[in-house]
Amino acid sequence: MKLNIALLKGDGIGPEVTSQAVKCLQAVEDTFGHEFQFTEALVGAAAIDKYGDPLPKATLDVCKKADAVLFGAIGDPKYDNDPDAKVRPEQGLLRLRKELGLFCNIRPIKVFPNLMEKSPLKKKVIQGTDFVIYRELTGGIYFGEKSLSEDGTSATDSCTYTEAEISRIAHLAFKAAKARRKKLTLVDKANVLESSRLWRRVVTKIGESYPEVALDFMFIDNAAMQLLLKPSQFDVILTENMFGDILSDEGSAVGGSIGLLPSASTGENHALFEPVHGSYPQAKGKDIANPIASILSAAMLLDHFKLDEESRAVVIAVLKSIKKGIVSPDLNTSSKYGTSHIGDFISGNI
Amino acid sequence: MKLNIALLKGDGIGPEVTSQAVKCLQAVEDTFGHEFQFTEALVGAAAIDKYGDPLPKATLDVCKKADAVLFGAIGDPKYDNDPDAKVRPEQGLLRLRKELGLFCNIRPIKVFPNLMEKSPLKKKVIQGTDFVIYRELTGGIYFGEKSLSEDGTSATDSCTYTEAEISRIAHLAFKAAKARRKKLTLVDKANVLESSRLWRRVVTKIGESYPEVALDFMFIDNAAMQLLLKPSQFDVILTENMFGDILSDEGSAVGGSIGLLPSASTGENHALFEPVHGSYPQAKGKDIANPIASILSAAMLLDHFKLDEESRAVVIAVLKSIKKGIVSPDLNTSSKYGTSHIGDFISGNI
Ligand SMILES: CC(C)[C@H](C(=O)O)[C@@H](O)C(=O)O
Ligand SMILES: CC(C)[C@H](C(=O)O)[C@@H](O)C(=O)O
Repeated sequence: MKLNIALLKGDGIGPEVTSQAVKCLQAVEDTFGHEFQFTEALVGAAAIDKYGDPLPKATLDVCKKADAVLFGAIGDPKYDNDPDAKVRPEQGLLRLRKELGLFCNIRPIKVFPNLMEKSPLKKKVIQGTDFVIYRELTGGIYFGEKSLSEDGTSATDSCTYTEAEISRIAHLAFKAAKARRKKLTLVDKANVLESSRLWRRVVTKIGESYPEVALDFMFIDNAAMQLLLKPSQFDVILTENMFGDILSDEGSAVGGSIGLLPSASTGENHALFEPVHGSYPQAKGKDIANPIASILSAAMLLDHFKLDEESRAVVIAVLKSIKKGIVSPDLNTSSKYGTSHIGDFISGNI
Repeated sequence: MKLNIALLKGDGIGPEVTSQAVKCLQAVEDTFGHEFQFTEALVGAAAIDKYGDPLPKATLDVCKKADAVLFGAIGDPKYDNDPDAKVRPEQGLLRLRKELGLFCNIRPIKVFPNLMEKSPLKKKVIQGTDFVIYRELTGGIYFGEKSLSEDGTSATDSCTYTEAEISRIAHLAFKAAKARRKKLTLVDKANVLESSRLWRRVVTKIGESYPEVALDFMFIDNAAMQLLLKPSQFDVILTENMFGDILSDEGSAVGGSIGLLPSASTGENHALFEPVHGSYPQAKGKDIANPIASILSAAMLLDHFKLDEESRAVVIAVLKSIKKGIVSPDLNTSSKYGTSHIGDFISGNI
């Protein structure tokens, strides 16, 4: 298979970890006889520094022409804590999601048996945890109208959802649940929000076409609590943009190793793969960042193109590195293995 | 001191637990020579059943005339999961907050040393956890304009905040931080929301008048994660209505004993005290509900009127019941003590 992959390494540890994922994809090319072409482009703070724009037109063009985007991370402390900054790295990511129509963000959360002790939660609490969050990614309060009154004393954000927006991701989530443990939990705040009530109605209706999937509902406040009390109760969680942002970060702490978690963002015509962790600027350039989340994102990319065997080979190589203790300091404080060495080990085992 | 207390026991286990709190307040009356007058009124599903309204005018009048409201819990499964229900018990609580101007919700979260093993989190993670959430309670997306398109295919909720709304609760939160460990964390989503950027500006400005308090900022997604990874890092968390709803439920799971957590909701002229747990309908009438959260809410009521010694006496009696194991089954599965017995024990020790 020939694939054109846009490489947006971004900021902080983004470049280092993405390079390891590229090594793995190249090993897949060699081993399985595919042809992957990588085209690099700037995004985030790196792009602001050079072009004054976190998503320059050239970068967007590269992404639009590509079959998939492999994304690193964005964000730089110099743009944080400044409510009046005119350009922010995050805007690049938000615009990219919108421009590519990446409405469906998928974050699988699984606890690795050998790493259970990394979790802040007790073993008996996390045992059996294996769920996936389907987060709507191009609607809701993220992309609603925003306004600030002229005198600057009042600000408004609005959250709109349409049946069409809910419906397209709901179908994907139901299909995922059907292929898994057949349970779908819609998380919302239907006791307060009109938009949540629309979600409930639309999802309930769609649920009728998936009779094998058990559908239930949970308020977001309760879900944030249940994720901590009994994470193993979830199979597929479906939710809107902002609640998904919160739950998926909370969920990523459940396993205690956010450095392992990949994500996919898909749409009608495009798909983007990125680690859940951020740019982690403190670790930049130190060869201590964990490349596994980025490598597993590359595995999700392979899955997306139905390269199942290839994806499995990557995952198996990752598990081997964990088992052998060829891991970064976040997983084993006394580890002496660097980002690049781990990437070599994993790609060498594909 | 003479106090007029409106008693809104509500639904589910609300009546049982509130009755124990009343016993304790009566013990305080006797021991310290105060005069508390209780006036009962219906709210929630109980009020819908009788009057078709979760907050009948008579109930609101009782609350407006009272010095304080002692609240049980609301919610009944028969009104859940029905996105088209015209009246919902929760509306009673939301309207009550708005009508009484209870803009500041205060939820202290502390881990009781004897109960650490109840937490889903590891001991080393929760050790030293002691923070309080200041949640804005009468603004934001809860009370913004809502609309549903005529054909029912599109729904909008809007989130507005004004400088005045932010400012009044920010001052209370800074004062609380000043009296505690002098750290205030504003939780928002300033990288996405205009209203969050207003929060940051206003709170930063107000912070200048509290130079002894260290102010920091955290995005809500990160906060939801940090609460799990390192809850002891927080002292006072200040946040808007929806984020506060989510964080405070998540926070209440940190200690593993939501049956212990009280809350206060205060405004210019009124104050309401209620346990954090909900109506827990499955336990209704079984004499198994934990009355401690309600009793500690009564202690917060006493605090509110500067009856510090009285409040301390209640807290000490509660700690004694925990130490002696006179607790409900949620804290000790083999316990045979009922709700009412525990209330007798605690009130008897005041
Ligand atoms: C960087 C930020 C805008 C983004 C979001 O809120 O969506 C991030 O938190 C994420 O979850 O990908
Ligand atoms: C019942 C519900 C409307 C309420 C809220 O969301 O505020 C509850 O969750 C709470 O936190 O008191």
